[in-house]
Amino acid sequence: LHDFVLRRFTNRVVVYDQIKDEAPEVIIAGFGRVGQVFGRLLKAQNIPFVAIDHDSEQIELVRKFGNKVYYGDASRKDLLEAAGARNARYFILAIGNVDVSIETAETIKEHYPHLKIFARARNRGHVYELMDLDVHKIRRETFDSSVLFVGDLFIDMGFAPEAVNKILDKFRVHDEMMLKEQHKVRHDDKSLISVSKQGVAQLAQVLSEDQVKTYISPN
Amino acid sequence: LHDFVLRRFTNRVVVYDQIKDEAPEVIIAGFGRVGQVFGRLLKAQNIPFVAIDHDSEQIELVRKFGNKVYYGDASRKDLLEAAGARNARYFILAIGNVDVSIETAETIKEHYPHLKIFARARNRGHVYELMDLDVHKIRRETFDSSVLFVGDLFIDMGFAPEAVNKILDKFRVHDEMMLKEQHKVRHDDKSLISVSKQGVAQLAQVLSEDQVKTYISPN
Repeated sequence: LHDFVLRRFTNRVVVYDQIKDEAPEVIIAGFGRVGQVFGRLLKAQNIPFVAIDHDSEQIELVRKFGNKVYYGDASRKDLLEAAGARNARYFILAIGNVDVSIETAETIKEHYPHLKIFARARNRGHVYELMDLDVHKIRRETFDSSVLFVGDLFIDMGFAPEAVNKILDKFRVHDEMMLKEQHKVRHDDKSLISVSKQGVAQLAQVLSEDQVKTYISPN
Repeated sequence: LHDFVLRRFTNRVVVYDQIKDEAPEVIIAGFGRVGQVFGRLLKAQNIPFVAIDHDSEQIELVRKFGNKVYYGDASRKDLLEAAGARNARYFILAIGNVDVSIETAETIKEHYPHLKIFARARNRGHVYELMDLDVHKIRRETFDSSVLFVGDLFIDMGFAPEAVNKILDKFRVHDEMMLKEQHKVRHDDKSLISVSKQGVAQLAQVLSEDQVKTYISPN
């Protein structure tokens, strides 16, 4: 317990001392794979930001590579205050853990409603919870890579690039629409499954036009 | 042990019976968030595939939504044989766990070298291992979403869309180049850190042109 209290205290002081003069425009909560891409691009654009992570090993590692990041729990109001949440404009919620992410979003919504939240989501369930909290912008962490990856496959299979772009665009639109439909019925298992199965049929229909034109099996 | 053996046996039979007539063009190993996007788009394009996952709960869930997916360990040769690896063309390595992913890639490379492997990677370390195995195509699972998400932020900050596209394109090219540089020195901690720090400076330089033009802080 002593060690725990001491660590919290020490960290709090470190955070406060270091952050005081920064007046960040952006706060990044969670400095893992997603948060670091934000950090790199913000740094390259000279946009001031403060990054917070709860994993001290991760912090030690990214600091070795020249990153500035603070140890702490981004769902704690005192830490957010020290990090400059009052005068920042954006809050990048890049925390991978769903529960901590939601808890942090709730804290921000309650105490710093002026902050625009950009939230990383793990999966559809996480998206629904973030939608309920009315965060500004949500992206599912593996969705875009997955869609582009299918595009790579289609290209390799011999699809025309324009056809692939069309298919992927339609798929994204369809999926976004499905997310909204599923969000409405998410507490009712039967409706959720029914809506989702309809979605599969709809997707086939939406894409059927491209299908005939673009794909002839070599088998 | 009895239960374990029985389960393995039962699953093998299930896989064999169901897969026999399918002659898949694509095998998807791992039917989580990434694998399912492949499954949905392949299904909509009528391209025959077989999906394998080791998580029986996950399988039960996705089956409820109308997916066909088999229980099994995709790094096992007998299962791959039953799944039609001999006559398939593509192997989508969409397994989230790094060790299982590498093990599976090794099995494919050894026994089915004709299969083109499209591999999901968790992080840079995973990419290096997949590069060593010379898989056909690699995408990091959270990278593209992260880059696009920074684009959303820049647009919200008032950057011109063309400027954002330019920044993100340059960043992707730079990052891909960095991956190759880091891959060369990955076993030498000091060189890795040095190369990475140089990379940060290079990125700032690469993007400096866009920076002045596009961003004026409102503070």
